[in-house]
Amino acid sequence: MMIYLDYAATHPLTPAALAAYAEAAALPGNPASVHAAGQAAREKLEEGRARMAAAFDVDPRTLTLNSGGTEGDNHVLLGAAQAWQERHGSPGHLVTTPTEHSAVLAPARHLAAHGWDVTWLEPDSAGHYSPEQLGAALRDDTALVSIHHANNEIGTVQPTAALAAVAAARGVPYHTDAVQAPGVLPVNLAEWGVTYATFSAHKWGGPRGVGALYVQRGAELPPVTLGGGQEGGLRPGTQNTAGAYAAGVALTEAAEAQPATFAHLRDLQTAFMDAVREIPGLTFNHPADGSPKVVSLTIPGADGEALLMNLDMLGVSASAGSACSAGTMQASHVLTAIGLTEADARASLRFSFGAATTRGEVQQAAAALRQAAEWSRG
Amino acid sequence: MMIYLDYAATHPLTPAALAAYAEAAALPGNPASVHAAGQAAREKLEEGRARMAAAFDVDPRTLTLNSGGTEGDNHVLLGAAQAWQERHGSPGHLVTTPTEHSAVLAPARHLAAHGWDVTWLEPDSAGHYSPEQLGAALRDDTALVSIHHANNEIGTVQPTAALAAVAAARGVPYHTDAVQAPGVLPVNLAEWGVTYATFSAHKWGGPRGVGALYVQRGAELPPVTLGGGQEGGLRPGTQNTAGAYAAGVALTEAAEAQPATFAHLRDLQTAFMDAVREIPGLTFNHPADGSPKVVSLTIPGADGEALLMNLDMLGVSASAGSACSAGTMQASHVLTAIGLTEADARASLRFSFGAATTRGEVQQAAAALRQAAEWSRG
Ligand SMILES: Cc1ncc(COP(=O)(O)O)c(C=O)c1O
Ligand SMILES: Cc1ncc(COP(=O)(O)O)c(C=O)c1O
Repeated sequence: MMIYLDYAATHPLTPAALAAYAEAAALPGNPASVHAAGQAAREKLEEGRARMAAAFDVDPRTLTLNSGGTEGDNHVLLGAAQAWQERHGSPGHLVTTPTEHSAVLAPARHLAAHGWDVTWLEPDSAGHYSPEQLGAALRDDTALVSIHHANNEIGTVQPTAALAAVAAARGVPYHTDAVQAPGVLPVNLAEWGVTYATFSAHKWGGPRGVGALYVQRGAELPPVTLGGGQEGGLRPGTQNTAGAYAAGVALTEAAEAQPATFAHLRDLQTAFMDAVREIPGLTFNHPADGSPKVVSLTIPGADGEALLMNLDMLGVSASAGSACSAGTMQASHVLTAIGLTEADARASLRFSFGAATTRGEVQQAAAALRQAAEWSRG
Repeated sequence: MMIYLDYAATHPLTPAALAAYAEAAALPGNPASVHAAGQAAREKLEEGRARMAAAFDVDPRTLTLNSGGTEGDNHVLLGAAQAWQERHGSPGHLVTTPTEHSAVLAPARHLAAHGWDVTWLEPDSAGHYSPEQLGAALRDDTALVSIHHANNEIGTVQPTAALAAVAAARGVPYHTDAVQAPGVLPVNLAEWGVTYATFSAHKWGGPRGVGALYVQRGAELPPVTLGGGQEGGLRPGTQNTAGAYAAGVALTEAAEAQPATFAHLRDLQTAFMDAVREIPGLTFNHPADGSPKVVSLTIPGADGEALLMNLDMLGVSASAGSACSAGTMQASHVLTAIGLTEADARASLRFSFGAATTRGEVQQAAAALRQAAEWSRG
């Protein structure tokens, strides 16, 4: 029996989402078409959007459907930069952090390489950023702030409402990559007061290749992909009726279950930590007040990739470094940013849980890790 | 009973593709993960890619999976332009046509507005472009040629191999938007000799939100979306395992059936034309040697949108203008480019057929059009 503890990388499609996908995929029409077939497709598409909007407590018209978190992050960073540059005639200033997902990090570096001044806020040892820190970094030419809500590697949760308020007081647009939040943490965009937020459906049990980008009413953002007039001109391309509907159905379930899921995941997290705590030298990298979905740990001297393969042999799927850089053997930029050495970062693993994970699975996984750690000591 | 004659806008997901989607969606892993769950997902992803590569007669490594035709078109135009500009320090020259889909047209206009010199080839009255014409347009600073293979509104098929050869002889990269071809026309990328080609799975019975971008081996193209290292660094974001596999399964079927589908569609096209030919004033806009999937016609003096709604009431789904601009009431840029007046373009309709369309449906649709045309004469 395989124990899947890599929910932060991707959450399997839920049965309800698959059924919704099949139902909407049976509709032949293109939601952009005026005829009855188009109308039927449009209804499903809009029901998907409305369900997401309800879960995030916003107007459906503020959600642009796209292909996922990477597209959303790129759209906000590159789009906001482009708009600033066309208005001011020259590059501006961006505030972000070194513990962003690569979908924010890479566009930020691209801007830095193209004349933008980028301030990288310094995390504390648990990956937090404070409103004071952000306030001190803002300038008159700050075009955008981009700080994730929940970290994908160590689960740190930022004080997004307080951070966004600091930016808003200076009239600076605030973006949060909230990809890791839905279904685990409360997501209330109205309360957060952010300008932009990015989401990816496969993290909450919806389909891969479907995302939502929130743009606050009145906020400006140009399209970065150009073509047809779909999604209010902000994101052209034939709309993914079945994907949007399935994403909405999965999110309704995940958002309703969120408080119970949070408690369940916290219980699993604690149980797992208690069961591996005695491994010689082991330290935890995730903060106690962070997302309950993630356990990040280091076994100094061990080889993370070797541990991962041994765990895999023992039937446990976990992760070393973020999923997106799993194909490449680089030490996690998040772990080094919070102060781990390269060697310790390479000796680190991430276990992440889902609503369907059981206490029994977590105990078995902990036993497997104890075994793998023992092998690694030779 | 609804008669769906809008296959050029989107083709319904085939039953085999839906089954494939469900099968692959049951796999929890992220294909970028090294563990067994990731491996299982990777196998399905790569089977999807391999099926598409086999259908197009290319090496699977030349196909980058993305979110569709719009993304692919933007990637090639904006990516190639960016690469040229970084190498030469200034904008270059682009050759394209006024009968491209808006996913090519809009990025081309964007480049024109940002210092690029764009040559718009002039179509003949059926929307064709010739190798001689292209040869005369090429310059030493031509960075890219972008000419569709099959037009989505009038079905014109370009001599892609001959056109690409002209560009190749001058060392200029050649892109073809081949979105409307698979399953209807032969697609042999090796034979065509193009540098880049874009595809969208929902046009051949695969899922919406899944596309493939072909990049010839040795050709350069930078990523335009930045993030993780997926798809060889060319297109980051969690890969859509189920979408890719379903797209591949649908394409295997569509490509095997292509010669038979072609004959069937030609038969439907002829039958439909014969059955509506007597409508007073009616003219056809699609060329006789074009794609058999499309009938484009004009009923001078009629209001295309009104015709469309009356057809809809009579149970027939067709299209006025391209699907992507159907939400907006603009005269089709393709029809005006081949010489129709604005008024005639607005009096035009597109009917497009699929493998599942029957002769009976086509006869019924023709009767409905005769009826709607009579109403429009008042
Ligand atoms: C010729 C052509 N190119 C590009 C596209 C864009 O594809 P998609 O809407 O899947 O992004 C379409 C269809 O809409 C098309 O017909
Ligand atoms: C925090 C965060 N942002 C962005 C992404 C990118 O989302 P996607 O891979 O769906 O494009 C991910 C997941 O991969 C993530 O965890």
